[in-house]
Amino acid sequence: MPELRKDLFTDNWVIIAEGRDGRPIDYSQGTVPANDPADCPFEPGHESMTPPEIDAIRPSASKNADDWQVRVVPNKFSALSPQEPRSVPVKQGLFQRMNGTGSHEVVIESPAHSRRLSDFSPEQVERVLRIFQRRLRTLLGDERFQFVQIFRNEGREAGASLVHPHSQILALPFLPISFRDRLQASRKYYAQKQRCILCDVLEQELEKDERVISAGDSFVVLAPYAPRHPYELWIVPRQHRHDLRDLGEPERLDLAERIPETLRKLDDTLVNPPFNLLVRTAPTPNHHSEHPSYLEDLSEHFHWYLEVIPRIKRTAGLELATETHINTIAPETAAQTLRNGTT
Amino acid sequence: MPELRKDLFTDNWVIIAEGRDGRPIDYSQGTVPANDPADCPFEPGHESMTPPEIDAIRPSASKNADDWQVRVVPNKFSALSPQEPRSVPVKQGLFQRMNGTGSHEVVIESPAHSRRLSDFSPEQVERVLRIFQRRLRTLLGDERFQFVQIFRNEGREAGASLVHPHSQILALPFLPISFRDRLQASRKYYAQKQRCILCDVLEQELEKDERVISAGDSFVVLAPYAPRHPYELWIVPRQHRHDLRDLGEPERLDLAERIPETLRKLDDTLVNPPFNLLVRTAPTPNHHSEHPSYLEDLSEHFHWYLEVIPRIKRTAGLELATETHINTIAPETAAQTLRNGTT
Repeated sequence: MPELRKDLFTDNWVIIAEGRDGRPIDYSQGTVPANDPADCPFEPGHESMTPPEIDAIRPSASKNADDWQVRVVPNKFSALSPQEPRSVPVKQGLFQRMNGTGSHEVVIESPAHSRRLSDFSPEQVERVLRIFQRRLRTLLGDERFQFVQIFRNEGREAGASLVHPHSQILALPFLPISFRDRLQASRKYYAQKQRCILCDVLEQELEKDERVISAGDSFVVLAPYAPRHPYELWIVPRQHRHDLRDLGEPERLDLAERIPETLRKLDDTLVNPPFNLLVRTAPTPNHHSEHPSYLEDLSEHFHWYLEVIPRIKRTAGLELATETHINTIAPETAAQTLRNGTT
Repeated sequence: MPELRKDLFTDNWVIIAEGRDGRPIDYSQGTVPANDPADCPFEPGHESMTPPEIDAIRPSASKNADDWQVRVVPNKFSALSPQEPRSVPVKQGLFQRMNGTGSHEVVIESPAHSRRLSDFSPEQVERVLRIFQRRLRTLLGDERFQFVQIFRNEGREAGASLVHPHSQILALPFLPISFRDRLQASRKYYAQKQRCILCDVLEQELEKDERVISAGDSFVVLAPYAPRHPYELWIVPRQHRHDLRDLGEPERLDLAERIPETLRKLDDTLVNPPFNLLVRTAPTPNHHSEHPSYLEDLSEHFHWYLEVIPRIKRTAGLELATETHINTIAPETAAQTLRNGTT
């Protein structure tokens, strides 16, 4: 049974999720991706190798049939437990713990065993986005959860343990501190200017045009001013909206083209890098017992977007100790290189 | 010239330090450690391959001679610039930047080309610790700097780019936000109880004896209650002291034995894992223009210690997005395994 423990020294919650065997040797080499489709639990026809399906998009109406286009299942090695009641912190001497209540889901994004997201058709990306929205609606509606993180690991260096294209969704019973810091920053800006910070940044970036990689009707792709990672990119919706749930079909179709197109630019420049894709979307203020000011006016001050982080530098001691990152590629250089294509 | 940029969305400073050429292809495979001593800039006799020496311990008095036992030099690829005046934030539209003023030093820890820290003699570790203390005294005395981080990357997965044993010291002109959070937590505890949080945790851990790996006269090695990483270990001084500078010779000698002994336990259990060693020591309150409450009573509420983080799990999208870590080894399991030795 997974458990949440509070780090007294930083106020962060940590998820402790022990496997059934704790043999340390298993962890020394990392997880090796299964490259053989015959063993892959995400192949069509292998539906029985996963826990029971949560959601899917398929032409037929028959659940668990092998004609799905996108499929959502519980993570077989779930870090959190969805069957538990709401987590309540309990004292353990000086420490605090709570039940690891939450949802840990896998979105199997394609029937194809081995395909980079950059090679997806826009139609397929659109289906994945639609599923993200559906899961967000359900999970943000569950009063046990305060926060939902959708993310994607592509490549072993980015943390992927299976090669079959998939993303993950975690619903957490707490708001992570680093996200609280984000909300505090955007709320502070809003309190001063009555404007959204990302709307203003977007306007400034489009005007200066130093860090913009592409600007479409609904989405702008840019290298942020203070990126932690080389070639970090943001895909930002022009229209202010605090979360992904209400994105309509025309914008979803536009985003579905924009994502693989942007990733192809990274592929060309960085030679198919491992990367993480992060969905930055608002939490649910109404499931909190307290109501801190950063949860007020959330729909006004927070602006959802996507973050793409190529994993071409290693996290070393400085980053672990201080969260201070050294980035050897200025975003202006990254934007120029990606705009021009490979030289 | 390196530059510091503020991430508006999190309030973190990021170090932008572009190399002379921005060829992205260089970064796609990471940095390959130079394994040939003939090319290694840290070998005795290769003193001219490094920038001019900052400090050293050697039997002779002649600077730059090849009989050094520990040697400190500026990082050849420095992320910060030590020749600049104090950094002052400057507005750039909505953004903020400042000069990358700071010190980025390398401590060459041994004349031996390839030796894990676990194989160091206590005498050699004692010299390294003495040099850490000397550099801390100088750098914390420089009014341009607000924070000093000493860290060590061993193994490529931990971020090491050269195999020759070395650690790094960064003096920063700002206090990283994650460290501010630590100080806020310890100050809050102190304000309530008039006691140091780590002193109290140490007492509780020694009493419960579930997570203690070894307890010597001056230092206790333990697996923390809420570790972010599998087999994360802390080496905590029993005597309350807010920073490493004033550690006396008897305790330094004890620590010098404790460090390689502890690392050998990790080597046995995890088969010579890559790891980071982090020094958690107090910043300098008097170089701040503002005086927030977490810098008050610093010598009372902050307790220095060492953190050892084996790098046997990959940082994936969840950790990047939320700083929320999933740890598959409970600290009780880690402590028990390390106490018992390899099975």
